[in-house]
Amino acid sequence: MTSFNLLLLPGDGIGTEIMAEVKRVIDWFGARGVASFEYEHDLVGGSAYDAHGKAVSEATMAKALAADAVIFGAVGGPKWDGVPYDVRPEAALLRLRKDLALFANLRPAICYPALADASSLKRELVEGLDILIVRELTGGVYFGEPKEIVTLENGQKRAVDTQLYTSPEIERIARVAFDLARARNKRVASAEKRNVMKSGVLWNQIVTRVGKEEYADVALEHVLADNCAMQLVRRPKQYDVIVTDNLFGDILSDVAAMLTGSLGMLPSASLGAPDATTGRRKALYEPVHGSAPDIAGKGIANPIAMIASFGMALRYSFGLVAEADLLDRAIAGVLAKGLRTADIATAGTTPCGTTAMGDAIIAELDILST
Amino acid sequence: MTSFNLLLLPGDGIGTEIMAEVKRVIDWFGARGVASFEYEHDLVGGSAYDAHGKAVSEATMAKALAADAVIFGAVGGPKWDGVPYDVRPEAALLRLRKDLALFANLRPAICYPALADASSLKRELVEGLDILIVRELTGGVYFGEPKEIVTLENGQKRAVDTQLYTSPEIERIARVAFDLARARNKRVASAEKRNVMKSGVLWNQIVTRVGKEEYADVALEHVLADNCAMQLVRRPKQYDVIVTDNLFGDILSDVAAMLTGSLGMLPSASLGAPDATTGRRKALYEPVHGSAPDIAGKGIANPIAMIASFGMALRYSFGLVAEADLLDRAIAGVLAKGLRTADIATAGTTPCGTTAMGDAIIAELDILST
Ligand SMILES: [Mg+2]
Ligand SMILES: [Mg+2]
Repeated sequence: MTSFNLLLLPGDGIGTEIMAEVKRVIDWFGARGVASFEYEHDLVGGSAYDAHGKAVSEATMAKALAADAVIFGAVGGPKWDGVPYDVRPEAALLRLRKDLALFANLRPAICYPALADASSLKRELVEGLDILIVRELTGGVYFGEPKEIVTLENGQKRAVDTQLYTSPEIERIARVAFDLARARNKRVASAEKRNVMKSGVLWNQIVTRVGKEEYADVALEHVLADNCAMQLVRRPKQYDVIVTDNLFGDILSDVAAMLTGSLGMLPSASLGAPDATTGRRKALYEPVHGSAPDIAGKGIANPIAMIASFGMALRYSFGLVAEADLLDRAIAGVLAKGLRTADIATAGTTPCGTTAMGDAIIAELDILST
Repeated sequence: MTSFNLLLLPGDGIGTEIMAEVKRVIDWFGARGVASFEYEHDLVGGSAYDAHGKAVSEATMAKALAADAVIFGAVGGPKWDGVPYDVRPEAALLRLRKDLALFANLRPAICYPALADASSLKRELVEGLDILIVRELTGGVYFGEPKEIVTLENGQKRAVDTQLYTSPEIERIARVAFDLARARNKRVASAEKRNVMKSGVLWNQIVTRVGKEEYADVALEHVLADNCAMQLVRRPKQYDVIVTDNLFGDILSDVAAMLTGSLGMLPSASLGAPDATTGRRKALYEPVHGSAPDIAGKGIANPIAMIASFGMALRYSFGLVAEADLLDRAIAGVLAKGLRTADIATAGTTPCGTTAMGDAIIAELDILST
């Protein structure tokens, strides 16, 4: 039986509570014998700072580099507002992304039919929405040099950021997107500003070439990034996979997330290059939501985005597609039955707690798998 | 009586037809004696290319520079697909923007109650929407240097665009936004990425300082640009004026436009520095929609965005605020009475033509002003 090695980093705030539910789901899949999941815990974020004076210790980093997948909760909270900038809780995530070289950020926008009314869009436009935004995460204008503010001789200031992409950076993110589309509806939309940006011209050329030479079975369209934002608002279901750069992906993934009407329900994955020995890509999975310190410790946090993040690990790190589908169906199932944590409760529904939601998902897994 | 000097540039496609309706509206206001409007026509775009071999002649440019406001229709069409790049129809608009130094692009997103159902958002979220996006139009990553694609020694390519803003560029666009907010609901939201971009840090600092020192009566909030895109989808009516850079404005103005459900209804303005003699800002007004060559000459084009663009000229170039309000009310009035051109017709409504829509707006102006 294949064995997978997970590092669980619950983090701060509600991280611990929602990770507890993930563990039950991991154990459920382990007990079914689909694979052997070995996992260990470690501190990250504010809790790691309290213990070690750093947002992530070197020992934890070594474990993350050795793991088949890192399952990350959420970090931060008012308790650590005053800590030095380079050891603030959020620094842990940046360090993990950097050292694991996680260049591909996968942001699914899924609208569960049971929650479609929570969207600001009309139900028919978002019900059943299932698109995947693939954002380049380690290049572009957030990282390019020069990046500075200088004071000119006349006292004026001048700020510069540099949007920079090389052909290999674009090739590797394009391949991730095409590979993902192959396992979905075989359609990729590449969003760029080729009309006004040289990086958009190169992006367009490289994605076109990779598509033609290596993925002739996947349909590719190009869309101007601003038009893509409009189209997401107008008719989001027209898309399958959208691949885009760091800056545009930052915006488009948030627009897509907001369409679903339930930001607290969305998982994400960040993938790196394949490991030299296992061939598996370095990977970190985390919910899109934060550590919600205001409701931490109350047992009312919604564990679905965290559990769905483990679902992405099943699909993208472990190749357990049927199991990932099963977990997604179990989540949709409990929602269809009316179960709601406080964050997604509407009039006429009684909110349940974190553990009760976990219980229900486990029960639904039992039902769906017999 | 104050005299204003307009240059009308109908352009190509439906430009001529919709500009004809604008002329009737100008004449209506002239006949009422609110001001003396002098206007002349000229060619621009493909029609100018056909006549002079250039998208805009030097004589036309001289008139544009001397005018109190340029009213621009739309340019382009398949007829000119093969003309050289630097004399293509769109080059006229770029030349006008550059020579008139139109650094402030005003994009109102207005949702007429009568058309709210055309939005992909739920009616209650967009009905009565009235926000104004102020986009910096001549700086930022679309123009900064270096801007190039180079081939490296190893054969790889490297593309660079440069996001660059100076403090005076940010000051002047901030002042435009604060001035506009003062005549509206006195609220400005500045959208930037101060968390990851140095240009965002400088933008934040300068807008904050201008607001504090010169516009203490206007409420200022800062919002991360990606969050702003989300908020526009979630609850757009929370905003009054949004000020942002060229790139973010390109995206946010399109998202905001799409919320209204009727892209063909939206006007825009581009403003430059105040003229040395008149004190009036250089200004160009144009509909957001294009030249629609497919329906040109059929008398079915919707003239509302073009007429509303003249309404913006009344408001922003001529200071005729009551008259601008009157024209806006007249447009809303004919829509409320059910009048629809083909582009906005729904089941149960009979589409009218371009001239009939102009007739109705003139008639409504008569009714509202007596
Ligand atoms: Mg974002
Ligand atoms: Mg745009």
